[in-house]
Amino acid sequence: MNNFNFYSPTFFAFGKDTENDAGKLVRRFGGSKVLIHYGGGSVIRSGLLDRVKASLDSESIPYVLLGGVKPNPRSGLVYEGIELCKKENVDFVLAVGGGSSIDSAKAIAAGAVYDGDFWDFYSGKYIENALPIGTVLTISAAGSEGSPDSVITKEEGMFKRGATGDAIRPKFSILNPALTQTLPQYQTACGITDIMAHLYERYLTNTTEVEATDRMIEAHLLTMIHEGPRVIADPNNYAARANIMWAGMMAHNNSCGVGRSQDWNSHNIEHELSALYDCAHGAGLAVTMPAVFTYVMNHDVMRFAQIAVRVWGCQMDFACPENTAKAGIEALRSFLISIGMPKNFAELGAKEEDIDKLVDVLCNGNGRNGSISGFVTLDENDCRNIYKLMV
Amino acid sequence: MNNFNFYSPTFFAFGKDTENDAGKLVRRFGGSKVLIHYGGGSVIRSGLLDRVKASLDSESIPYVLLGGVKPNPRSGLVYEGIELCKKENVDFVLAVGGGSSIDSAKAIAAGAVYDGDFWDFYSGKYIENALPIGTVLTISAAGSEGSPDSVITKEEGMFKRGATGDAIRPKFSILNPALTQTLPQYQTACGITDIMAHLYERYLTNTTEVEATDRMIEAHLLTMIHEGPRVIADPNNYAARANIMWAGMMAHNNSCGVGRSQDWNSHNIEHELSALYDCAHGAGLAVTMPAVFTYVMNHDVMRFAQIAVRVWGCQMDFACPENTAKAGIEALRSFLISIGMPKNFAELGAKEEDIDKLVDVLCNGNGRNGSISGFVTLDENDCRNIYKLMV
Repeated sequence: MNNFNFYSPTFFAFGKDTENDAGKLVRRFGGSKVLIHYGGGSVIRSGLLDRVKASLDSESIPYVLLGGVKPNPRSGLVYEGIELCKKENVDFVLAVGGGSSIDSAKAIAAGAVYDGDFWDFYSGKYIENALPIGTVLTISAAGSEGSPDSVITKEEGMFKRGATGDAIRPKFSILNPALTQTLPQYQTACGITDIMAHLYERYLTNTTEVEATDRMIEAHLLTMIHEGPRVIADPNNYAARANIMWAGMMAHNNSCGVGRSQDWNSHNIEHELSALYDCAHGAGLAVTMPAVFTYVMNHDVMRFAQIAVRVWGCQMDFACPENTAKAGIEALRSFLISIGMPKNFAELGAKEEDIDKLVDVLCNGNGRNGSISGFVTLDENDCRNIYKLMV
Repeated sequence: MNNFNFYSPTFFAFGKDTENDAGKLVRRFGGSKVLIHYGGGSVIRSGLLDRVKASLDSESIPYVLLGGVKPNPRSGLVYEGIELCKKENVDFVLAVGGGSSIDSAKAIAAGAVYDGDFWDFYSGKYIENALPIGTVLTISAAGSEGSPDSVITKEEGMFKRGATGDAIRPKFSILNPALTQTLPQYQTACGITDIMAHLYERYLTNTTEVEATDRMIEAHLLTMIHEGPRVIADPNNYAARANIMWAGMMAHNNSCGVGRSQDWNSHNIEHELSALYDCAHGAGLAVTMPAVFTYVMNHDVMRFAQIAVRVWGCQMDFACPENTAKAGIEALRSFLISIGMPKNFAELGAKEEDIDKLVDVLCNGNGRNGSISGFVTLDENDCRNIYKLMV
């Protein structure tokens, strides 16, 4: 195991009706003027936004509103939010929504206390300071409620890039599984896929003998495999929603990633798909992961065989571990299809003729030099072959 | 899943040579005058105490020393530490050692800012305030490095009781697996047993459908089963030490216990053994757990069958799940014996003729009224039967 630091100081309030504690938690963590940042209709229609506002009112905490966050959140709204925070002397950013609202809130919180262009953070600069952030989560997926990460898309060039820093870890996150019960099945399945991808990205490591982490990742994957079909069959299954929500947070607060190398090639390869086609990130990952894993499997067959046996219940083929490794990838693919995810470019709405463009932006955009690296380093030719496997 | 809060704001610095960062971390978390609290010879002989002192010196942070913590730490030294903190205007308590030193440091930190008798906290009062605490861990066992808990023994009556409060969660914990390499094999095995007990106590729940937590507990148990024998066979196996140390922290920071009822009857029943005979807590647990589990198994046979199948690799006996449940308990017993733990009263140094006394202190001491409760409620007769199973 490599040396590491682990720090996850977010306060989690988990369970039914916990959104009514938003005001108390903002007060506890030092907020006196709040920006409430959210997406569109559902948090308004469901009454959630009103409940959060009432909770702030009951603590006599003033707030301003900025809605309009879209999936794959854009830099334009971030600039708007930064201006609003400065103008209104906001000292706390409260995201109400899913990963997109939270990621956009993180970018605003970092940009509001930074003299330069916030995009610097999405070009590699570590985030040292930010306004404190709280979240009321409505989708189990991105894990942004417990992570120091944010992903934003820049309209100009459609670059989708990530930023990180302990300063943007939420001070508190309110996780009420009941809030996710009204999600369309497709979005629920996209969330499950995203959570599983966060786990796979950390499983594909070149650091040996980190059994504690392997076992934790396997545990959360087994939870998703158990609870995913239950929640697809019955969207009102609170227990299944709760297990997915809690495991989804842990899948991405990096408790499963410390002390070893990680991959993130699937995320990088997918980001170009959702940036270009504006498809759901989880749906893109469902198509991307099996292709990437098939392509890189021979880099460490036993790692893929291990996850096949321990997570997917495959029989170990001792004479040919490659068969077991392949069976595990097929089991993942079948599972994702079973919960309603797309299996190829056509179902995703992507086009084979765009592959050269995708590869170019992926490998050469935003400061990269012809390749992406992770579990293995992939050059333009590798990435082209991987996209072709998805057609 | 029940509603819950989870808050684990401890900063973990993990890996080789991390003890040299003690001074910087005390500074980061606001300390300007430190009590270094520790046990006896080993931290002095190994040079660890000198390295910690040098690290404080390099940050120009003054300190006072209080050694002499013994296993099953006593209230007498806690009172001494509280006086010393007040007299010397200490504002940070740094424990160097295992769970005993850390628990004693927590009691001192709470008592130093409390007007009454610190034992109030060990009689049920929640700890609201304490001096900030840091730890340099030397034994993977108690999990106190990441927990809000402390256990102290009061000499008068030999009551061993616990206290809790977020205020005594360490601000930082330094976890260097190499520091555990010089431990005697017996102590290493006691630590592994204690960690496994923390997991079992949380597995035995009456809350249904908390799959995410079941899977996490199973993950950490599988890590102990994999790494325990490796570290007993080769005490210098750094990777195995590292996995045990990290899993040991997570076994007790309550990430495996939120949102559901827990047991803790094995700990309660054991505490009377280590209080009376001054045996190692882990050794006491090795004798206690199989007896308790055998006694309470029929309260929920399927729960014991589940852990037998998922953790111990037992075959499910679908015609008679009780057989599977029993096989799992036997597998645990055999594992503990294989790493050198005692299997009965005789090997532990306990005496059958003391059972009535043990039962009386357990069930009636320190405010209890004839029983202890957890996974099941156990009255005096139940506890007597359980102790008899250990003979």
